[in-house]
Amino acid sequence: MPFVLPSWISQQPMVESLQCELPLPSLSDNTGDLDRLLRILKQSGFSPVIAHPSRINHLVRQLRQGQFKVTVVLGYHRCHWELMEVVAGFAELPLLGFAIDLGSSRLVFYLLDLKAGKVIAEDSVPNPQIPYGDDILTRILVARKASNFRLLQRLLRDSFNRTMHRMLERAGYSHLDVYGLAIAGNTTMSHFLMGLDPANICREPYIPVVNCFPLCHAADLKLVAHPQALLYLFPNVGSYFGGDLIADILGVGLYRTDELSLLVDVGTNAEIVLGNRDWLVACAGAAGPALEGGVVERGMMALPGAIDRIRIDRENFEPCCHVLGGEKAAGICGSGLIDLIAEMFMSGILTVQGKINRRIFSPRIVNTPDGPAYVVAYGAETDDGQDLSISEIDIGIFLKSKAALYTILTVITGKVGLGFEDVKRFYVTGTFGNTIDPSMAIKIGMLPDLPLETYRGLGDTVGCGVAMALLDRALLEDIDKVCNQITYIELNVNMELMNEFRGALFIPHTDLRLFPSVEIPDGACG
Amino acid sequence: MPFVLPSWISQQPMVESLQCELPLPSLSDNTGDLDRLLRILKQSGFSPVIAHPSRINHLVRQLRQGQFKVTVVLGYHRCHWELMEVVAGFAELPLLGFAIDLGSSRLVFYLLDLKAGKVIAEDSVPNPQIPYGDDILTRILVARKASNFRLLQRLLRDSFNRTMHRMLERAGYSHLDVYGLAIAGNTTMSHFLMGLDPANICREPYIPVVNCFPLCHAADLKLVAHPQALLYLFPNVGSYFGGDLIADILGVGLYRTDELSLLVDVGTNAEIVLGNRDWLVACAGAAGPALEGGVVERGMMALPGAIDRIRIDRENFEPCCHVLGGEKAAGICGSGLIDLIAEMFMSGILTVQGKINRRIFSPRIVNTPDGPAYVVAYGAETDDGQDLSISEIDIGIFLKSKAALYTILTVITGKVGLGFEDVKRFYVTGTFGNTIDPSMAIKIGMLPDLPLETYRGLGDTVGCGVAMALLDRALLEDIDKVCNQITYIELNVNMELMNEFRGALFIPHTDLRLFPSVEIPDGACG
Repeated sequence: MPFVLPSWISQQPMVESLQCELPLPSLSDNTGDLDRLLRILKQSGFSPVIAHPSRINHLVRQLRQGQFKVTVVLGYHRCHWELMEVVAGFAELPLLGFAIDLGSSRLVFYLLDLKAGKVIAEDSVPNPQIPYGDDILTRILVARKASNFRLLQRLLRDSFNRTMHRMLERAGYSHLDVYGLAIAGNTTMSHFLMGLDPANICREPYIPVVNCFPLCHAADLKLVAHPQALLYLFPNVGSYFGGDLIADILGVGLYRTDELSLLVDVGTNAEIVLGNRDWLVACAGAAGPALEGGVVERGMMALPGAIDRIRIDRENFEPCCHVLGGEKAAGICGSGLIDLIAEMFMSGILTVQGKINRRIFSPRIVNTPDGPAYVVAYGAETDDGQDLSISEIDIGIFLKSKAALYTILTVITGKVGLGFEDVKRFYVTGTFGNTIDPSMAIKIGMLPDLPLETYRGLGDTVGCGVAMALLDRALLEDIDKVCNQITYIELNVNMELMNEFRGALFIPHTDLRLFPSVEIPDGACG
Repeated sequence: MPFVLPSWISQQPMVESLQCELPLPSLSDNTGDLDRLLRILKQSGFSPVIAHPSRINHLVRQLRQGQFKVTVVLGYHRCHWELMEVVAGFAELPLLGFAIDLGSSRLVFYLLDLKAGKVIAEDSVPNPQIPYGDDILTRILVARKASNFRLLQRLLRDSFNRTMHRMLERAGYSHLDVYGLAIAGNTTMSHFLMGLDPANICREPYIPVVNCFPLCHAADLKLVAHPQALLYLFPNVGSYFGGDLIADILGVGLYRTDELSLLVDVGTNAEIVLGNRDWLVACAGAAGPALEGGVVERGMMALPGAIDRIRIDRENFEPCCHVLGGEKAAGICGSGLIDLIAEMFMSGILTVQGKINRRIFSPRIVNTPDGPAYVVAYGAETDDGQDLSISEIDIGIFLKSKAALYTILTVITGKVGLGFEDVKRFYVTGTFGNTIDPSMAIKIGMLPDLPLETYRGLGDTVGCGVAMALLDRALLEDIDKVCNQITYIELNVNMELMNEFRGALFIPHTDLRLFPSVEIPDGACG
C-alpha cells in the first residue's frame, strides 16, 4: 500500500455523477432541454452548471435518447460546475481519476475510483526529462532554447499518456472513464507540464510564472482522458516551494493539528515545513543530492540492485548487506548510505570527523586513488564484478549533505524561537526520506535526537495529498489557506549558519549534548 | 440614430480595461508573475480572475515587457472574470463590442465603443439564409439534412465575419480590438448561430435545445474577434419567444416601470408582451407576414424603392407617394400598405368590408384578373415600367393580418382582466413595427384607439437592448429575472378568438364603439 487515506476526508470528489429523471416536456412545461436538466441539477444542489457550447448537441441528444432519464457527470470548477457528460438512461458509470506525483526523478501514478474513494492501481516511471538534466537547474538551462522547451513538455506529456493508457488497459477501463486529474510537482516540473516558461525560476528574485494554476481540462495539455476531464495542478508557494510540498502538508494533515509538527521532504532538495493549525513556516536547501544517492560515486536510487540496509559486525568489521530485489549489488541508495555511515561509525571504522580510522585492521579497509576506502561488497557480489567501496571523499560529500540538513532543521526551528524538543510529530517524506530509518539517521547526527515515536513514516505523502484533493473537493479551500498561511524563510548564508554547519559536519555533531542517545565508540575521536 | 440609449444604465460594460502598476518582484515579495497581477486586480474589485492556460505565457510576457506596468482587459463571466489580454505599459486600448440584432430577415450590426458607451457605426445585411427559406419553418425543415444544417450555420457565420470586418475596416480598427459580442435573435436563429439542432422547436411540445445559452468565446463560433472575446447570446423564453423579444423588453425598459405597458414586435410574427415591474405576460401569433410586406403581391421590405408613405386626395382619388431613397417605386412596404389601406378607406374607395367601392369613379380603379384593384403608381413611376396596384385579394390578405394582430392584442389584455384603456405605454417595435404610424394603424383598426401619446416609437429596440447588455453587465441579472417572470400564454384557436377575429376583419371593426376616434366616411358601409 503506497499510502493510507486519512479517515477525516469527506467523500465529495471533484467529479460527481448522478442519475436524474426529468419531468417530460409538455405544452405547459416547455422549457429547453438543457435548461430542464440544469433545473433539476439545481434542485440537487449543483448550481451554476455550465456546459461547453461545443458539447450541447451531444449532451441533449443523450437526454432525448434516454427519454429524459439520464446519468450525468459534473466537474467542480470552484465557482461553477461543468456538465461534463450525459449518458442516456440510468447507467453505472465508472468515475476514475488519476492522482499524479510529478517528481523530477520519478512520476508516480495512482488510478482512483472516485466513487468508491479507493486506489485501483499504481504505477511509476522515471521522469523522461532525466536525459536532459539530472537536476532541475540543468533542465531549465536546456529549456532556454524554444525547441528544447517544447521537447521537454512533450516528453512529459507522452510519458503521462503512455503510463495512464497502460494502467487503464490493465484495469479494463477506457480513457473516457477518466474525469479528473490532480497533479503535484515542484514549481519547475509544474511549469514544464503546463508549458510555462521556467526561466525566471532560477534567476534572482526567483519568480514563477504562476503559483496558482487555473483549473483546466486534460485536453488543454493534450492528455488522454475524457475531453472535459478536469485537471487540477497543486499551487506553488514560490520557486523553491512547489505543489508537491503542499500535497505533503495535506497528506500528513500538518495544517490541521494543534501539536507542533515538522515535515522534511528529502529528495533532490530538502524542503522543510514547521508549524501547526495556526501557523506554518517553510524553507528549503540543497541538502539532498548526496542523500538521495545521486552524488556519491556508487550511489543510486532505491531501485532493484541498490543496497538499502547494512549492518557491520563490531568484531570483524564484516558488512551484511540487503540488496533490493535480491539481485547482485549495483550501488548503494540513500538509506543504505545512512546505514553504512552509521554502522562504520558505531563499529569504530569512522572517526567523529568522518575519517577512516587507520588504527583498525581489516581487509575491507583499502587504499584507493581517492584515498582510504571501505569495501562494502567485493566484486563477486556486485553486478559489474568490481568492488563496491566508499571512500573518505564520498563520506565527506555525504557528511556535507547531512550537515546541511541538520543545519536547516536547527535554523528554522530557532527562527521561530523553538527547539527540537517542542516538535511533537516529525515527518520524513520524499522519494528518499520515505526509506530513512530515523534511529540510524540520529546516530550520524542527520536528524535530531528525539524520541523515536516522534518520527512518523506515512508512505507516499505527496501521492496521498494529491489523491485526497481529487476525493474531497473541499480540500481545495484548505490548500489555498495553506498557501496563504506559509511564511517562506530564505536562508541567508551567514556566520551563524556556517558555525552551525561546521559543527554538524561531525558525527554526530561537535556538541554531543544535542545527541544524548548516541554512544560515542572508543577511538572515534581520532 | 438607430436608437437612444437610456440614461439609467450604468457604465459597467461586460468588458473592462484598467491600467495596473505592480510592485516589482523581490526576494521579500516573490509571488508568481500572474499571481502578482491577480492580487492587484483583486484589490481593484475583480475576483476571481481566471486566465486560460494557453494564454498565460503571452500574458506574463507582456507583464515583463512592461516592467510590471500594464494595461489589462477583463471579461465578465458572471461567476468569474477572465483575464483576456495584457498589454505592456499604460496603453489607451480601444475596447470595442458588437451588438447584433440577429433577425430572420435582416442582421443589424452596431459597433460600440465600450469605454465611451457609444455607437460608432451601424450596418445591416439581409439574413444570408433567406434563399433557403423566407420563413423560419422552411429553414428548420431544410436543416434536417445535416449538411444543410452546417451550411446554414456557416452562411450566418460568414455573413457576421464579413460585415464585422467591413465595419471595423471603415472605422479604422482591428478585429483584435473587439472584446465583446452581444447578440439577440429569435429562438431558431439563435440555435442556428450556436450550431444547435432546431428540429424540436417546431414539433409539439415545441422544445428548444437551450433557452439560456452559456456565455462563450467568439472563437467557439469561429467569429473573427479577439480570441478571448466574450459572446453573450440573449436567452429565449421558449420556442416562440426568443432573445430578440427579451432585448426589446430591455430596450424599452418595460420591466422597470409601474405603469402598464404593452409591447408588440411586428416582424415575421407578432409577439406581444404586457406588464410592468411586477408581472409580465406574453404571447405570439402569425400576424406578421402580410404586414411586413412579404405576402402582398407587390409587398417588399422597407428598403430603397419601397413606397412607405401615401396620401390620397379625397376629391380626385389621386395618390401622393413617398418612395424610400427617392428612386422609382419597386413595391410597397408595410407602413406604405397601412397608409394605403387607411387612405383608401378614408377617401371612400374602400368599404368597411375591405371591398373597392364600385360606385366611385376614378381611372385608378381598374379590373384585373385578380378582380378590382387600385393603381398606386403607373408604369412611368415604377422601376419595372408596370403599373403598381393593389387588388381586393391583396387587401383581403392584409386585413386578415391586421385582424389577427388586433385579436391577439384583445385576447391577451382580456386574459389578465384588463382593457386597452389600462395600457399607459404602447410600444410598437420590430423591423416593420418601427415604421408604423399609429394614427394610420388606428384608422384601419390594427391598433387600439388609444390617445396617440400612448404610442411610443423608440427606433431599433432590439439593437438598443443588446447594446445595453454589453454596456451594463448588471443587466444580465435583469434579463434572467425577466425570463423567469414572463408567463407565456398559448393562444388556443377557439370560438371566442374566432368571433373576435371576424369582427376585426372589418375596417376598422364591426364594433365601432372600439374606435370612437375613427370617422366612418360616407358610403363606406357598402
